[in-house]
Amino acid sequence: MPLKPDIEHPEAQSQRVGFAIVGLGELSAEELIPAARTSEHAYVAALVTSERDKGEAFALALGLTPQDVYTYEEYDRLGERDDVEAVYIVLPNSMHREYVERAARAGKHVLCEKPLGMDAGDAQAIVDACARAGVQLMTAYRCQYTPQHWAARRAVQGGKLGKVKLLDSIHVQVQDDPEAWRLKRELAGGGPLPDVGIYSLNTIRFVTGREPEWVFATQHQPQGDPRFAEVEESVSFMLGFEDGVVANCLTSYGALTTSTLRVLGEEGTVLMDPAFPYQGVKLTVEDEAGKFEPSFGSHDQFAQEFDHFAQRVRDGQRPWTPGEEGVQDHVVMDAIYESARSGQVVRLKKVEGKDAFRGTPPEVPGQE
Amino acid sequence: MPLKPDIEHPEAQSQRVGFAIVGLGELSAEELIPAARTSEHAYVAALVTSERDKGEAFALALGLTPQDVYTYEEYDRLGERDDVEAVYIVLPNSMHREYVERAARAGKHVLCEKPLGMDAGDAQAIVDACARAGVQLMTAYRCQYTPQHWAARRAVQGGKLGKVKLLDSIHVQVQDDPEAWRLKRELAGGGPLPDVGIYSLNTIRFVTGREPEWVFATQHQPQGDPRFAEVEESVSFMLGFEDGVVANCLTSYGALTTSTLRVLGEEGTVLMDPAFPYQGVKLTVEDEAGKFEPSFGSHDQFAQEFDHFAQRVRDGQRPWTPGEEGVQDHVVMDAIYESARSGQVVRLKKVEGKDAFRGTPPEVPGQE
Amino acid sequence: MPLKPDIEHPEAQSQRVGFAIVGLGELSAEELIPAARTSEHAYVAALVTSERDKGEAFALALGLTPQDVYTYEEYDRLGERDDVEAVYIVLPNSMHREYVERAARAGKHVLCEKPLGMDAGDAQAIVDACARAGVQLMTAYRCQYTPQHWAARRAVQGGKLGKVKLLDSIHVQVQDDPEAWRLKRELAGGGPLPDVGIYSLNTIRFVTGREPEWVFATQHQPQGDPRFAEVEESVSFMLGFEDGVVANCLTSYGALTTSTLRVLGEEGTVLMDPAFPYQGVKLTVEDEAGKFEPSFGSHDQFAQEFDHFAQRVRDGQRPWTPGEEGVQDHVVMDAIYESARSGQVVRLKKVEGKDAFRGTPPEVPGQE
Amino acid sequence: MPLKPDIEHPEAQSQRVGFAIVGLGELSAEELIPAARTSEHAYVAALVTSERDKGEAFALALGLTPQDVYTYEEYDRLGERDDVEAVYIVLPNSMHREYVERAARAGKHVLCEKPLGMDAGDAQAIVDACARAGVQLMTAYRCQYTPQHWAARRAVQGGKLGKVKLLDSIHVQVQDDPEAWRLKRELAGGGPLPDVGIYSLNTIRFVTGREPEWVFATQHQPQGDPRFAEVEESVSFMLGFEDGVVANCLTSYGALTTSTLRVLGEEGTVLMDPAFPYQGVKLTVEDEAGKFEPSFGSHDQFAQEFDHFAQRVRDGQRPWTPGEEGVQDHVVMDAIYESARSGQVVRLKKVEGKDAFRGTPPEVPGQE
Repeated sequence: MPLKPDIEHPEAQSQRVGFAIVGLGELSAEELIPAARTSEHAYVAALVTSERDKGEAFALALGLTPQDVYTYEEYDRLGERDDVEAVYIVLPNSMHREYVERAARAGKHVLCEKPLGMDAGDAQAIVDACARAGVQLMTAYRCQYTPQHWAARRAVQGGKLGKVKLLDSIHVQVQDDPEAWRLKRELAGGGPLPDVGIYSLNTIRFVTGREPEWVFATQHQPQGDPRFAEVEESVSFMLGFEDGVVANCLTSYGALTTSTLRVLGEEGTVLMDPAFPYQGVKLTVEDEAGKFEPSFGSHDQFAQEFDHFAQRVRDGQRPWTPGEEGVQDHVVMDAIYESARSGQVVRLKKVEGKDAFRGTPPEVPGQE
Repeated sequence: MPLKPDIEHPEAQSQRVGFAIVGLGELSAEELIPAARTSEHAYVAALVTSERDKGEAFALALGLTPQDVYTYEEYDRLGERDDVEAVYIVLPNSMHREYVERAARAGKHVLCEKPLGMDAGDAQAIVDACARAGVQLMTAYRCQYTPQHWAARRAVQGGKLGKVKLLDSIHVQVQDDPEAWRLKRELAGGGPLPDVGIYSLNTIRFVTGREPEWVFATQHQPQGDPRFAEVEESVSFMLGFEDGVVANCLTSYGALTTSTLRVLGEEGTVLMDPAFPYQGVKLTVEDEAGKFEPSFGSHDQFAQEFDHFAQRVRDGQRPWTPGEEGVQDHVVMDAIYESARSGQVVRLKKVEGKDAFRGTPPEVPGQE
Repeated sequence: MPLKPDIEHPEAQSQRVGFAIVGLGELSAEELIPAARTSEHAYVAALVTSERDKGEAFALALGLTPQDVYTYEEYDRLGERDDVEAVYIVLPNSMHREYVERAARAGKHVLCEKPLGMDAGDAQAIVDACARAGVQLMTAYRCQYTPQHWAARRAVQGGKLGKVKLLDSIHVQVQDDPEAWRLKRELAGGGPLPDVGIYSLNTIRFVTGREPEWVFATQHQPQGDPRFAEVEESVSFMLGFEDGVVANCLTSYGALTTSTLRVLGEEGTVLMDPAFPYQGVKLTVEDEAGKFEPSFGSHDQFAQEFDHFAQRVRDGQRPWTPGEEGVQDHVVMDAIYESARSGQVVRLKKVEGKDAFRGTPPEVPGQE
Repeated sequence: MPLKPDIEHPEAQSQRVGFAIVGLGELSAEELIPAARTSEHAYVAALVTSERDKGEAFALALGLTPQDVYTYEEYDRLGERDDVEAVYIVLPNSMHREYVERAARAGKHVLCEKPLGMDAGDAQAIVDACARAGVQLMTAYRCQYTPQHWAARRAVQGGKLGKVKLLDSIHVQVQDDPEAWRLKRELAGGGPLPDVGIYSLNTIRFVTGREPEWVFATQHQPQGDPRFAEVEESVSFMLGFEDGVVANCLTSYGALTTSTLRVLGEEGTVLMDPAFPYQGVKLTVEDEAGKFEPSFGSHDQFAQEFDHFAQRVRDGQRPWTPGEEGVQDHVVMDAIYESARSGQVVRLKKVEGKDAFRGTPPEVPGQE
């Protein structure tokens, strides 16, 4: 994450899109804010937090002033700040809708963490609010902005694997803290599925460009474990696509971190392992001749997101992962939960075409 | 595969169990016969084949005589051969039952390739025939005789992973030849499921020692592909165990070879990749401290099978993978096909205890 | 590289050591300045550069003011800045001595990039200047501050490998630009040896804790390649230690990047591959039981350096890699060049004891 | 190692070249004899051993008779056996010359284990004896007959790496038994150098096709270790080629097994790790685009050797690794020992051209 002041074109620096970071949790502190500082097209102009002290300490470290820090009560006052053109919502899922709607009303463009909402209806309301207000909305699917995931997509769609037959993905990790908001149904909307399982779902949709036609799922919520009083510990789900293509997926808050994606084609295989870390995604493409592990320069997934959205704010084009992309994951996740409850296959409305919910492709480093 | 004449104890050599190899296909020629020649407790005493010329060429190369070669018509004459104490059935699945029954009637012990039969009923008839005749019966599950699979089992059962939460296995390969007997329903009983998918099923049962309580599955049989006129191309199946443990599995005859097994525990992970090749099974055990890839000396899976069964012939103990072990896979596979047909979850009869269908554990090299 | 304002102890933040970064090249921009921003004990208080515009752009991005930017002519005015307690010298090797001496005279502590100087005499003069001025001096050997290199050292010295017999290291990369200062003898003092080969030398000395007793080397300077008009392209060198331990090393500016270190012991092996990158150092420790690849949390080598030196500035203890550590590499490199010139083995003065030139060990993350 | 009786062309089987295996140690029992049994062009027709009982047990297992077993006293009687066209000498190095000469006098072609002799003079005498007798002579360099080593050679010579700059190879293992003949100077001629270090030397010569112009070496013979009373424990050597190309090599009997070869080019790297095992040689070719690990079907290095030499016996062409290839390694090893003794660089006679000592290339499986 180099420091990149634009020395040659200082005027360009003033063209960057100012963001308010809404929520100062671990993701903001450890990834988003450092990433924003290396972005070419975005910068952090304001912070929104419930803890003013913490906000001011961050402001200081960022070269901002106490005036750039807002509490949630003061959030709407961002409307007065012309230099804040966009907000990045990094709040518990249940708060997304309210804070997106308030931002949209204030005329701010919105980059929102995944999952977009609590369920498909909630997510659609978010999309609608932004549409009404005429502001851009992007779901922060960082794995659609890495050179490795794009190389996987090109291998899958470019015929290198022959016809794709089956897919398999795992994303599990241990959630230790029974007090974490991610374990409260009212705040998170679900357990590991909308938090980590969504990576499997979203990336399978991304690399194939296709939408599932049906799902089957089972979930497990262990008795007596205080962490799983409200949400499931694990979900195993199967996604059915056209032509008999099936994807098997596992997600859990109860198992040591593993993240993989495998695409099995008649002539080749794509393996990502680990598939979804912030750093060190590893891609292997195998065919009869052997295994190839492409090299990628270093990059920051979050800076890519900031840059892509800032560019869309400037040019008005639809982001690659707009709100609708986030809604569609909820549609599928709602069906997964329904299947897990009913023990039955749940069919989804047929979606025609490729990349049905996506916009302008990002410029991804290392992509020829 | 060293040549191991027992120089010190030539009398021991005469104690070895003589086998008739029944069927001279690729597996016999490339794996079983070379393996038998390096076995400590078994040797090839006779060959049964429809092609006498081929049989005699093999006999010559093995140091046997034309009198040691039998056609299928002459098969029952093995009864006259006291030096042939056992048969190894390496025939299309549909022929297993007849050739096991005839061998049993002739008083020969039986080592039979997997799958044991065409379905659970057929397999049970095989078990019954051997029981009636008082001969030993073993299903040739080579992956229950390798040091890597035993090390995986010990890691899973020894607590190294903490509580096991989820499993995932893939076994796919390309079946190119539309004329292969494995693609004829009458001969094979099914497609990739009883041929390669069975490895995932059997190994999951082996490493956990547990039996599934329910299955859900979907299969795909592409229209217009002459290879899949009679059997499915792919099966995706989910196995449900007690305590919410779920295993996702993929099998296919339509995708480039991949074979994996992953066991996800709260404190660690077992990965076998590749999981099921004849040579080069690779095991990695991961926990928070890091990844460990144990070393194993070289060994031959098939020689281990020969040795284990020959020892059981000598000592009369139940083999580790008796006929009942083979029946149980058919019970589960029958349920998988039923689920794929009905689109419904299929429940299995509850099986109590660990290793419910297994006998005396083998001596596995490299196992401390 | 998280942003870590010390929210709980804002007073601690004021205890941090202010550094002037002297030289704004790629290393400063891409690694050192971002790292300093995440340091617990250090921060960037001033910038020294020949290009005021560039300096001011960086200052702006860092939350500093134009008054915090100094040209080399203004360098001595840092003496007036009480908040600048230390300098980090990131200049061509030939300039180290002058800029260290001027900093020392101004009472500033000095963290200096490797190699410390142009040769052993030059480096010793740097050490002497700091000693006279009573300021701390540390050579910036980042690989002595990573958890992976410390884990390698512990494996080597803790007996896990049995007696160490041989070592092997490679550090090569392509230097494309004939105009690079690193290819000018007057500026760099040598070619790949003091720039990248020094990592092999320094890390071998670090993991063993021992000093070589003799060296043999050969170098190659291709005719007609404008890049190598003044310095060598490659050096191959052998280091002899007590008890017959020998290390083979390769370094070059002419070959695609490779960086490895292998320590061969009677009972085990340490492999680092890649051994010297900024991110992604990979350690494998092998013994008869298998291969172990320990896990390490993410960390920043440069932040570790800043923190270690800042702590030494506060507590007055000798840094782990003081100036003397840098001198010793020059002593060995001088001998390597002498051997390459003469074609003869060159003996070094015997150094007794372990870690003969090192000070207080750093706190390294992930080190138990 | 499949059993391959030539069913279609039984007459071809009678065209195979009959070998006498001279020496029934571990290599013969575990590798050579099993390999010969799978060879297309060779078969074992006789055994020569000091232990008649052991020989007869092997003969029995091989389908031979007691008449096919010879003691060393009876060795010359092989001359009476027209079906024995060649001998494979698998004896301590000091016995090679005598047993080659006697075979040559009896008109038998000779495949001889490496190292060819005790030193360059001894090896040259072996070459001369075969030339005088008009029989073929091949040095058994198995690593010049594997698809992986040929793929490495093609990568190196085909320009895929750009210009080759440096090489590095390690071959070490633990020799535990102080009584092993390999530790007796009179029998082995040296320590690890002619036994395992020769793989590094020979493979570097093979992949580059070039001969070294000078060597520098150092060796270590620890005091008080009964294993190393007569021979060295370790040798570190440097080989100098034209254009400044240098190879660093390590060999030892005192360190846990490691075998690697790295070729560093301006645009790419070849890595073999492990480089020299009987099974599982792993090749990686890296360039800026990434790392490629080619796939190779299974094969047997020793069967390849048998086949190549048997074909040369039939067609009279010069083997790829004739006696002269074996002499050249001795010339270089003699220089290595001389350098280790003198502490000086030793220059070798200039050898022009590529593959100066090699004959007809082998057909290697998996080689396009």
